[in-house]
This record gives sequence, structure tokens and C-alpha cells, in this order.
Amino acid sequence: MPLPAPLRGVVPPLCTPLAASGDVDAGSLAASVERMVAAGVHGVFALGSSGEAAYLTDGQRAIVLETVVTAARGRVPVLAGVIDTTTARVLDHARVAVEAGADALVATAPFYTRTHPVEVADHFRRIRAGARLPLFAYDIPSAVHTKLPRATVLELAADGTLAGLKDSSGEDGSLRRLLVSLRERGLDASFSVLTGSELTVDGALLAGAHGVVPGLGNVDPAGYVRLYEAATAGRWSTAAREQDRLAALFSMTDAGDEAAMGRSSSALGAFKAALHLLGVIDCPATAAPQVALDDTAVRTVKESLVAAGLL
Amino acid sequence: MPLPAPLRGVVPPLCTPLAASGDVDAGSLAASVERMVAAGVHGVFALGSSGEAAYLTDGQRAIVLETVVTAARGRVPVLAGVIDTTTARVLDHARVAVEAGADALVATAPFYTRTHPVEVADHFRRIRAGARLPLFAYDIPSAVHTKLPRATVLELAADGTLAGLKDSSGEDGSLRRLLVSLRERGLDASFSVLTGSELTVDGALLAGAHGVVPGLGNVDPAGYVRLYEAATAGRWSTAAREQDRLAALFSMTDAGDEAAMGRSSSALGAFKAALHLLGVIDCPATAAPQVALDDTAVRTVKESLVAAGLL
Amino acid sequence: MPLPAPLRGVVPPLCTPLAASGDVDAGSLAASVERMVAAGVHGVFALGSSGEAAYLTDGQRAIVLETVVTAARGRVPVLAGVIDTTTARVLDHARVAVEAGADALVATAPFYTRTHPVEVADHFRRIRAGARLPLFAYDIPSAVHTKLPRATVLELAADGTLAGLKDSSGEDGSLRRLLVSLRERGLDASFSVLTGSELTVDGALLAGAHGVVPGLGNVDPAGYVRLYEAATAGRWSTAAREQDRLAALFSMTDAGDEAAMGRSSSALGAFKAALHLLGVIDCPATAAPQVALDDTAVRTVKESLVAAGLL
Amino acid sequence: MPLPAPLRGVVPPLCTPLAASGDVDAGSLAASVERMVAAGVHGVFALGSSGEAAYLTDGQRAIVLETVVTAARGRVPVLAGVIDTTTARVLDHARVAVEAGADALVATAPFYTRTHPVEVADHFRRIRAGARLPLFAYDIPSAVHTKLPRATVLELAADGTLAGLKDSSGEDGSLRRLLVSLRERGLDASFSVLTGSELTVDGALLAGAHGVVPGLGNVDPAGYVRLYEAATAGRWSTAAREQDRLAALFSMTDAGDEAAMGRSSSALGAFKAALHLLGVIDCPATAAPQVALDDTAVRTVKESLVAAGLL
Repeated sequence: MPLPAPLRGVVPPLCTPLAASGDVDAGSLAASVERMVAAGVHGVFALGSSGEAAYLTDGQRAIVLETVVTAARGRVPVLAGVIDTTTARVLDHARVAVEAGADALVATAPFYTRTHPVEVADHFRRIRAGARLPLFAYDIPSAVHTKLPRATVLELAADGTLAGLKDSSGEDGSLRRLLVSLRERGLDASFSVLTGSELTVDGALLAGAHGVVPGLGNVDPAGYVRLYEAATAGRWSTAAREQDRLAALFSMTDAGDEAAMGRSSSALGAFKAALHLLGVIDCPATAAPQVALDDTAVRTVKESLVAAGLL
Repeated sequence: MPLPAPLRGVVPPLCTPLAASGDVDAGSLAASVERMVAAGVHGVFALGSSGEAAYLTDGQRAIVLETVVTAARGRVPVLAGVIDTTTARVLDHARVAVEAGADALVATAPFYTRTHPVEVADHFRRIRAGARLPLFAYDIPSAVHTKLPRATVLELAADGTLAGLKDSSGEDGSLRRLLVSLRERGLDASFSVLTGSELTVDGALLAGAHGVVPGLGNVDPAGYVRLYEAATAGRWSTAAREQDRLAALFSMTDAGDEAAMGRSSSALGAFKAALHLLGVIDCPATAAPQVALDDTAVRTVKESLVAAGLL
Repeated sequence: MPLPAPLRGVVPPLCTPLAASGDVDAGSLAASVERMVAAGVHGVFALGSSGEAAYLTDGQRAIVLETVVTAARGRVPVLAGVIDTTTARVLDHARVAVEAGADALVATAPFYTRTHPVEVADHFRRIRAGARLPLFAYDIPSAVHTKLPRATVLELAADGTLAGLKDSSGEDGSLRRLLVSLRERGLDASFSVLTGSELTVDGALLAGAHGVVPGLGNVDPAGYVRLYEAATAGRWSTAAREQDRLAALFSMTDAGDEAAMGRSSSALGAFKAALHLLGVIDCPATAAPQVALDDTAVRTVKESLVAAGLL
Repeated sequence: MPLPAPLRGVVPPLCTPLAASGDVDAGSLAASVERMVAAGVHGVFALGSSGEAAYLTDGQRAIVLETVVTAARGRVPVLAGVIDTTTARVLDHARVAVEAGADALVATAPFYTRTHPVEVADHFRRIRAGARLPLFAYDIPSAVHTKLPRATVLELAADGTLAGLKDSSGEDGSLRRLLVSLRERGLDASFSVLTGSELTVDGALLAGAHGVVPGLGNVDPAGYVRLYEAATAGRWSTAAREQDRLAALFSMTDAGDEAAMGRSSSALGAFKAALHLLGVIDCPATAAPQVALDDTAVRTVKESLVAAGLL
């Protein structure tokens, strides 16, 4: 489905179900998409950080995109992550995404290499020119180790390079300044600002953000849809209560033993364990070399689901 | 005035007016306090980062505290920053603050030295035991280069070491998780969470924060009081509009030339230039070795004040 | 040529010459390899950071490896960078490198994703098991944003996972502790430690390092060979003087205007400008979106070459 | 004793012995100084990071300086750390140091506050002008979170603001470039570069550094004097062997349990435990809130001393 401008609403970054063999489990992925659409989400984002894009081969990435586009059946737009170190490599992914029928691309700033704002802007311009699909910038300093400067985003919003921003910086003050600046320039009616901070969605929407890309939305898409609908209806206390419930649910991401595994493995493992416990996916495996959750951690995840009323 | 538990509302971190000589300008400081009280603030915080505490000698710090306590005349509580590298040095400042009549202390985690959560907890416990005044933890990773772990804050809230937290981490997702955890433990009725993120106050209050310590509140205390009052009355759209106006005003902090001076000098210089333009303080000087704003920058500050309806 | 164990000597990380079109210039690359071999280097490293690996598509990477292996003609071992975000993607590159006839692989820790020492160790073990070529760990925190823990390197050296380490961390104190620990365990006779810090090679060799992977060796391979030979002969003052000359030459990496381009673009642009001025490569272009050196910068590079006696 | 220009040799940063009460143990401190002088050190540095300066009150700092100056009896120069957040506070410490009879001052860049190279240069110029003693810049990014730019050091060396640099950045490549630049400008004959990287002293001296400020020199000052003398005599292999022995001894700094205490507490605790085991100081206590070494850790320290031939 063609991308609305600006894109609004809940756009979960899809987890990528894997079989025990490590192969992409297309059936489970399609089931997850179906559950999302049934919950009322406004789009899906494949091959983001929650989708373990950094762990998947090019072959696996292509399977994911084809599966998601097919499963979405044009009911919601499909955003495709084209995450790689620099421009030429991103463009290779973009070609695959276009062929697979994605509706928009999501690219980060260059990483691994050290970069500069002038290069970051040129990077996005080259991707936009080369790929001919609406392009979202993915601001995720925890992964790429630079923050997109507000001036760069404004420049690329004004000249049409970017259709929107997924802000996973966690810097909500900076986000507020961006939203105010976009409004001053009349760009907020076309440029979409989606927060990736799943714990402050009520505040981001109050500040004027257009939507949210919540990793936790894999587990509870309906919760985020309720939160979004309450917010757009001006029922802010209801939105805040829903966000509080989701924030409590988010504690599952700490389930993994801090001494024995990384926080990313713990969070992605928890989302997948939850999807498995909920019967959405067949196998909770994460990609190598991530450490798997142990039984204690899975019990913690289960308790979070029960406490949140999901199980 | 004794500290309410929990402290709620707007508690600006007072700028410290200096004469051209570098001496503390006690008259201007008292005038600024008077203006704050008239605007309806709920407390004042002396010797924070906005107060250039890191730039003031012990002698100057003592003058600041005496001046502020005298000027407040018991109408609002006075929180005193006792910022120093580690416990023993903080306790020396705490003794001065107690003698000056401060109502509460605000201390950071140890800095300069590398530290550990166990040491951070012990640090706050020793300050609390040694100083016998309500104690706020000041979470400011941009200055101390560690983030207060949520578990540590919860532990120190539960055992009575801390009366509250000033969260200047800018990590609003982490703040949300803390607020939810405090509520789960029944601690939100006694422990005060104040955000130091002056651009997301509406969202923080929606999330259940008790108040705000806004550096920009030096320039527009009445604006933050209006924002707080709208939020507590549930008029969230009004609160958001006020926050938007304040976020636009905040752009003054970028007035200084980025190539020629630091961002901290630019922000503190802008606040003082604004207070000078508004007739509140006699001289806009910041402490050495900060670079002063040039005429172009001061014009930018002036334009911000005009645009915000303050001049 | 099969990899000696331990690999010793000067192993330059080859720049990848590009045509103005952006295509790999295989002729210039072969010429650069020939010049290296003539200068007496002990190996070449293709597709490292200096080789702009992060900027090259998979297709370009394959061309580079085939060109280098062909040009080396078995006279020196060819190390192949297999830089990518995580294990499965690295293994895809490793298969290409094996087919191209590389003699060893060089892989970093996972990046983009956050990781953990247990996962890092598993990552290298899986690459070693999957690729069946000697494997070097590439410790480059400026790119991957974690430092390889000494304990992990020792563990992977002891169990035969790693044949060596390329240490581009710049932490020479940490390198010293590693070298002492390897000697205590009798591993220094088989495990190769190569420093990537091109400005402290004399000190690293004095400390027992087996060799060096100098980016600046693209410009002056003979200088690094002289430095290495002086050091192995115990002529330390001569080694230091050569290092001083090379450190002065290294100032070319600052040629690019700091306000207008990144430091990485400046350094890689300077190496390529130097190779172009020296007549080794046909075109000084760097990959998009890197900013190109302007004429002033190229003049600075030229002056460095003249001052170092290379032009 | 007046400071030689340039200062050369071994200048240990003195640990500050404390009694169990937390008070400075002046007797043990004097004994440590006496042992240093007997070992042939070329100066002593009081109130550095190894001296727990950040943990000591102003009263304690004054006692330390008076004790050290008295104990040194003019046989070696006494450098006094004047570590504090910004200029005015540093100048207060400088006045005390001048009165106590220190021979030189050692100051860091501003910390806690964010700063800028222009401000850093002004900071050092104001300290030099205000204190009238030779001034060393203390480059310690792990504590102050900025690195002194090479251009700033060169500027302040050329105009006479600085008498030298203590480089605790661990960036030996950057140090090499500085040394080459100083020599190009003829400044190496007056400006003293002392490395604080105690594990790469042989390499630093080979590169032209004038001396070393080794924390581990508290434990084995004679070892560092032997290393320095071998290096100045051109016996580089001997120097490297001595450095290797000291690097092995340095492993004591990891004695403390990583899960239960910080790395700084572990290192300072190990130095003091060693001094206690060697009979130099009466009590191994470190300042609050540092976690103390447990018995297992103290045994590890003892084994290190035995292995190094010191016990």
C-alpha cells in the first residue's frame, strides 16, 4: 500500500522468527504480521534492529521482505530496513527491497567508519536518488554512534530527501526541538516523525510526534494501538495509563542474566520468548552469536505477560 | 521553609549573577529570587549546574546560599547544591549549606574518579548520615559521566536515604521505568522525582513526575508555572502548547558561535544575557574561563525573548 | 603463500584505488601490491578500514580480493578482511575470501548491535569453524565501539581459534599486558600480535609485538620495512628516528579542512592523494559519501611527501 | 628544590596513606617519600589521581603538601596537584600549594562542566598568571572526559604558560606526534613531557619523552629508576625487560572483585595493600566511598609482590 504522507500511527519493527536451525521461519513471520494487522497497526517495519537485521545474511533478508510484503497484502504499508555501513552497500539492499515490493526504506547514517554531517546528508541524498522510494532516516546512536543533527534532518525534510524520521535516540528533548522546528517551517504536515522510544510514546504524541515504532509492539501491538487512539482522541490520562502498563511489561527485557549475556540479547530474546509463549511463533531462537535466555529468564518473561494481562 | 514530601512543582536552578569583577552580585541574585517567588515557583535550587557551581570558589558558594536563603524568606524551600568530586568534599559543602539555612541538599554521584554502583550508594548514605537534611540525588551524566542505576535510586528511596531525584539525564524512557517502579513500591507518595529536562516537562508530568528543575526557568519562571498548573489540572493540550513556546525560547542556548565557544558557555551566557535584557540582573558576565557571548549572539537572545512575548 | 606462524613483519592494509566512476581500479591496486612486495613487506591486508571495506559492495570486495591474490603471486601472504556486523554475514564474506585464495581472515567483533564478551568469543569460534583459514581478530574500538577484552584474546589464542591479533585500539598499555600474558603462557611463539598504531611501532616492537599493519605503509612501505629491520637488529635509535620521520609524514592525515569533512575522509583521502602524487595509482578518489580533499589539502599532502624525502 | 627545565626522570604520583579513621597518616606519607628519594626518583607528585586528591578535603590536601615538602627536604622537586573543576577553584588550591612550598603545579582541564579548547587554553593561562609557579598540564581524559588538543599544548608550550605535560591519556600515538612537533619547534629542550602510562615507559622514552609519572612507582620506585637509567644509557632491551617485569607486577591492580567494586578502587587499594605489605605504610585504607580489598584480593597483591621479587 502506498505510504501516506505523513505516515501516522503504530508501526512495529517486526521481530524475525527463526527456526532452531537458524533459518528464517516464514510461517511464523507471516503469522506475526497477521496478528499485527488484526490489532490495527498502521504499518510494519521489517529488518530493523528488533528484526535482527544486523544478524541476517542477504539471503535471509530477502526472504523476510518477501514474506512480510506478501503477508501484509497491501493492508498496511511495509517499511524495509536497508541497514548497512555506507551508501553503496545500502543501495544494494534498497534494490532488493524495491523488487520485493516494499513501500518505503529506512536507512541509518553511515557506521563503522567515522563520518561527518556533510557526508551523512550526501548519504541520504544518494540513497533517495538511487532507490526511488520514500526514505526514512533511522536515528539510532546506540548502534551507529552518531546522532543525526537536527539541522541535517530539517534540511533533508525541506528538500524532500526524507519522508520521515524514526527517532531511536532516546533524546526526547532533542525530539521536541525538532518537532517545534518542523512546525515553524510548515513541514509537520508532510514529514513523519516516529519515535522509537517505546516507554514515552504518550509524551511524544503530546509533543506532536506522528507515531511510534515500538519494539515491544511485537508483544502487545493492541496495547500500542489503544495508546495511540487514546492520544489522538485527547484522552491523555488513558494514554498514560496504557503507557504505564506497557512500561511495566517492558521489564521483560531485563530477564536475561546481566553477568552472562548482553542487554540486546536479553531484550530480543525476551520479545521472542513472549511471542513463543503467546503462540505466535514456533521457536524463540535468536540469531548467533546471541546468548539464549535460560529457563529462569523465560519464567520472568511469562510473569510479565501474566501481569500485563496478556497470558 | 521545611521541604514538603514529596516536593512538587517548579524549582528553577538559579543562575548566579556575577559582577564584571567576577564577584557574586548578591543584589541581582536576590532580585532574581524575588521574581521567581512572584512567578509562583515552588522552590529554588541554588548552586546547580545552571548556577555555575563548578566555577565558584567555596567563598562565593557561601555567599550565594546566604543570599538565596535570605531572599526566599521562608516562602519557598531552598535546595542547595553540594557538588564536589567525592564524599568528604561534599560533606564540607553540606556543613556550609546547613549553617546557611538550606532546606535540602542536592548531590551528584562521585565524579573525576571512576566509580561503581556500590560506591555510589555508600556515597549518598554517608552524605545523608553526615548532613541531616533531606537529600536529592542529582543524576547528570553529561557532567559526572555515569548514570544513576534505577536499582540504586529505588534502594535509596526505599531506605529513606533520598528524598528525591533531580533527573538531568535526558533519558525519559529510563525515567518512566523509575516512576512505574516507585508506584509499584508505594514510594511515589513520599519520594519526589523532578525532571531537569526542560523541553519535555509536559510528558514527564503526564508520566507522573512531581515537578521540574528547568534551567530555562531562570528566564521564564511564569511560563513553567503555567505549564505545571495546566498539567496538574489535566489540561494537557494547554500544557503542550506552553511547552512548545518554551522549547522555541530554548533555542537561545545556541546563540553562541559553535566554532568559537562551548555549548555550555553558550547556554549559560544566553540565560544571563536574557536576564540582563529583562532587567533582572545588572551584568550578564559568566565565570572564567567561559567565553562571553558576542553582540550577534546577544541580538539572537533578544529576538528569542521578543518571539516568546517576554520583551 | 601459507601463513607463517606467527606472522611477523610489515603487513600494510591496502588502500583500494577507485576510478572516478567509483569502480575498483584493479590495475592501480595491482601496482600498489607490486610496489609493496618490492619494498619488502611481509604480507598484505586487503579490505581493512584503510581499504574502505565498509564502503565497498560485495561485488567490489570480491574484485579486490581476486586482484590482490593474483598480484601477490604467492610471494607474500594475503590477509582478507571479512568485516561485517555479525557472524552469519561475516561467514558469507569468508566463503568469498576462501574461494579467492586468501591466506588468512581478519574479523572484528560484532558491531551495530550491542554485544557481550561471551558472544564475542562465540562469534570468533564460529567464524574459525566455518571458514577453515587462520583467523586474526581485528581490535578496532573506534569502529566497533567495544574493546576486545584481554581475557577473551588469551582464551582464543590458547584454544587455537585465533592465529593473531591486529590491535588498532591505540591502547599500548593494554597491548603490553597482553604481550606479557602471552609470553607467560608460552603463546608468543605461535600467536601473532600486530599493532595497527602506525606511530608507535618502535615501542610496540620493543615490547615484543610481532609486526605492524600501518595505514601509512600504503604511502611509505619501505620506511616501515626499514623501521622493522632496525628494530629486529636491535638498532633502536635508528628505529626511533625512522618512526619519527614517519610520524611527521603522518601529519598529512590532517590535510582536510576540519570544519568541512570528517577525520576519516581526510586520512583516507590523504593516503590516496599521496599514492596519486607518487604515481602509484591513477585516481585519488575515495568512495561516496566521503568528502574529497580540495586543492589546498592536496598541496599539504605534497609538502609532507617532499619533507619526508618521498617526492 | 627549583624545578629543572625540562624536568626529566621518574616522578611518582604519591599515594596518600590514611589511618583507619580516614585521617591523613603523615608519618607513613613521609616514610613513603623517604623511600622514593632513596630509590633515586627525580621528583615527587603529590595530590594526583593516585594520591586520591579527588577524595581529600581541602584540610587534608594541605596536610599532604606540607608533609611532602618537609619530607622531600629540597632533595627532589615537589609537584603539587591542584585538581578542581574550574579556574577559580584551582587558583584557591594553587595559593595553598605556593604557601606549602611546592615547586610546581599540576592542573587538569576544566571538568564537570563541558568545555572548549579556547576555554581550556584560557584556564591554563589564568592559573599560570595567578600562581607564579611552573605549571604542568595533566591530560587525563578518563577523569576529565576531554583530551587536551595537541595544538593547545603546543601553543601553551610556546608561549611559556606550561612547563610540561603529564600525559595520562594512554594515547601513545598522539604523544608521538606531540614529541615530533615539539622538536620541530625547538621546544623539547625546555618543555617536559612525562608519560603517565606506566606500562609503556620504554617506548615513550624511546620516542623522546622526558620522564614518567608512574602510579605503580609507589610500589616499586627502584624498578622505574632502573628502567629510566637503562633507557637513557641506550640499553633498550634491558629497559624493555624491566618494563615487562613491571607490567606483570601491574596485574595487582585487577585484584579486586570486578563484580563488587570499581577498577579505580581496585587499583588504588592494591597499591596501598602493597605498600602495607612492604612495611612502608601503617594502614592500607582507601578513602570513602571506595570499596576495600578483601582478603583474597590482598593475597593476590602479595603474590604479585613475590613474583616481582619485592617480597
